[in-house]
Amino acid sequence: MTKVDTLIHCRWLAPVEPATTIYEHYSLAIQEGRILDILPTDQANSTYNADIEHSLDRHLLIPGLINAHTHAAMSLLRGLADDLPLHEWLNEHIWPAETRWINEEFVHDGTQLAMAEMLRCGTTCFNDMYFFPDITARAAAHCGMRASIGLIVIDFPTVWARDADEYISKGLAVHDQYRSDPLITTLFAPHAPYTVSDKPLEHIRVLADELDIGIHMHIHETAEEVDKAVELTGKRPLQRLYELGLASPALLAVHMTQLSADDISTYATTGGHVVHCPESNLKLASGFCQAQALVTAGINVALGTDGAASNNDLDMLGEMRTAALLGKAVSNDASALPAHEILRMATINGARALGISNDTGSLIKGKWADITAVCLDTLETQPLYDPVSQLVYASGREQVTDVWVAGQHLLKDRCLTTLDANDIIERAREWKTRIST
Amino acid sequence: MTKVDTLIHCRWLAPVEPATTIYEHYSLAIQEGRILDILPTDQANSTYNADIEHSLDRHLLIPGLINAHTHAAMSLLRGLADDLPLHEWLNEHIWPAETRWINEEFVHDGTQLAMAEMLRCGTTCFNDMYFFPDITARAAAHCGMRASIGLIVIDFPTVWARDADEYISKGLAVHDQYRSDPLITTLFAPHAPYTVSDKPLEHIRVLADELDIGIHMHIHETAEEVDKAVELTGKRPLQRLYELGLASPALLAVHMTQLSADDISTYATTGGHVVHCPESNLKLASGFCQAQALVTAGINVALGTDGAASNNDLDMLGEMRTAALLGKAVSNDASALPAHEILRMATINGARALGISNDTGSLIKGKWADITAVCLDTLETQPLYDPVSQLVYASGREQVTDVWVAGQHLLKDRCLTTLDANDIIERAREWKTRIST
Repeated sequence: MTKVDTLIHCRWLAPVEPATTIYEHYSLAIQEGRILDILPTDQANSTYNADIEHSLDRHLLIPGLINAHTHAAMSLLRGLADDLPLHEWLNEHIWPAETRWINEEFVHDGTQLAMAEMLRCGTTCFNDMYFFPDITARAAAHCGMRASIGLIVIDFPTVWARDADEYISKGLAVHDQYRSDPLITTLFAPHAPYTVSDKPLEHIRVLADELDIGIHMHIHETAEEVDKAVELTGKRPLQRLYELGLASPALLAVHMTQLSADDISTYATTGGHVVHCPESNLKLASGFCQAQALVTAGINVALGTDGAASNNDLDMLGEMRTAALLGKAVSNDASALPAHEILRMATINGARALGISNDTGSLIKGKWADITAVCLDTLETQPLYDPVSQLVYASGREQVTDVWVAGQHLLKDRCLTTLDANDIIERAREWKTRIST
Repeated sequence: MTKVDTLIHCRWLAPVEPATTIYEHYSLAIQEGRILDILPTDQANSTYNADIEHSLDRHLLIPGLINAHTHAAMSLLRGLADDLPLHEWLNEHIWPAETRWINEEFVHDGTQLAMAEMLRCGTTCFNDMYFFPDITARAAAHCGMRASIGLIVIDFPTVWARDADEYISKGLAVHDQYRSDPLITTLFAPHAPYTVSDKPLEHIRVLADELDIGIHMHIHETAEEVDKAVELTGKRPLQRLYELGLASPALLAVHMTQLSADDISTYATTGGHVVHCPESNLKLASGFCQAQALVTAGINVALGTDGAASNNDLDMLGEMRTAALLGKAVSNDASALPAHEILRMATINGARALGISNDTGSLIKGKWADITAVCLDTLETQPLYDPVSQLVYASGREQVTDVWVAGQHLLKDRCLTTLDANDIIERAREWKTRIST
């Protein structure tokens, strides 16, 4: 018998790699935070013993979900201003609130609220873009959650930096600080083509090459963005990015709702990724991302919720369901984006986009033990013909019972182990009082 | 002090009538199943005493949700065949399974599973269309849930009836049996224009007039339906229904994804209702219902989940969220279908469509006490700037704690009081075993 740290036994296991596989009555052996073995439970019981053993015999285990586009701290603005036209929402509500309120405390409290919500819906890793990325990184590392921290760059001054040069230099400091942290990685995060000019984009491209990190950017989110760029420069934003050399396997293009068939095939040749945020695109009436067409073209499509101010939740299980349903309607094909494809988008595709697929995104030997357990024994997921179908189409976030990140048990029978939920709620209430008066 | 049966005190109350109102620290006094009074809690405490008193000081009370289009018993086919083209899904999976398995036991067990799920997501009333409507009616009455039972009519024979005449006569017997039941009402339910010929539709129109009941029908669900009708008859289905005299304030047209601007303005003049089923329309790639355009045209739009085989849940809270998000994208306007409008669609509009708006659909004096309580104190709905925004955009079904129908407490701190959840799950498992072997 080999001694391991933890053994998790489950009814069903969807490892994502190999694709579309479902194991029944399987176990995971975890040692020093990584998956040491994955094998039938009867073999596990005769091979390993463990200090900690979990029997999840009503549960499906999946790789921890990867939320590939967030503005975590914006959770504190959830529901501040809904049902408004995009321009009014941004100009009269969100931007003024951000200008007035964002500081280190806001980012800390908002990020904690977001992480608490994300863990409770099975998310183990998030890819963030916001001000004070140092605070976001510290909050994630402290909580034990995996995070990809966006080194935000915008042309105009904010409380975080005065100009593009300062955004970049402060971002590089964050990158240096966390370069050896096993949980925290960094990406450059120039906000969008319409808010970052050529010079900083060229600088970012050079630095991203040197440091071998990716670039996370909102691109072709709305028709207005594309039309205005054409009006001002004669070029569509993607064309400009191509000319600046930004399109490569290092690019994560978020939203991409405004793409012609030519755009899709050209983008596919660059090896760039797309982060699909269906609920935010719907809520802001940004347009429909042709997600199935992107997949068909061979583009790696990950999934994100966007910030809670435009969603208004960070529930990746719900986002998976919306992506699956909407994908069929948008491509006029009820067989588009099937459940297993959606699970890949929310796990391994996210890991690939973030450049961490050697470490997470599927349940295979050697990767970090980033694991989510979903109880499928509830009334709402009966009868159970196919566990992955029930996961995507019928499960709610409340069915997520346990979450591990790098083997650490961060959600235990729906209770957070490293975050204080009551304190987080209390601080959210205080922010509400401040912001709404 | 006046003695009443029940007093419910709450933090927030959205009565739906008057529109967009939110009361804070209000109470409902319930006597003999009906709302006797609705008033500030401090006044309630000095006016009424009650045998049963509930203090829901972290909760929003709303009228019980009305699911205006279901095939309840199909819950037993939830997830049997997902991600398939519509034709293959129906012809190779759903219809063969129905032909093989539907009987009184199937309808009883499937309806109980559906009602259990619906109560647990805040639904107090459902408008059903399925075979063995007598069994559905009996199950609902026995559970204490409000139901509008569709007297199904189809041209072809099934285990329920041989031909249109028999469907109609068996339907009339169900209508007679429940005509004085306070929970059960009936509607004629000719399945769709393409499955019911002119003669039975004319007969139904005459009977519906005589009995003063409505007509519940799938109409313009897919482009194929419309195209085939034009090919076969030279007429769009709606045109044929107009000529048959079926369009009137008694008609509930379900789906209506294929409508021109002219169709919308013409339908508005008939006074007919539309039941919008956004998730089913997405999942089956049926098309996009122009819900905001229908509302703008003055049409009463209710909301339904459709059956669990094409959704795959019966979660009206989730359906409200999808309707709100999708409505914005489809009308290219982020201010379309705001949260309060969505709450109306899921409550009073449903009651109007079913002809029961004098009895339910809003929390006003004299109506039945059909009430849903949603806890808004969870992490996922913090901070709380607007309770109805948080209800629609951030709440999950798990936040529904209590449900009353006609004053009977059917869901009590998430436990069903008149249905045996364990037994229902056990029977669903047995059906799964039978159906999948």
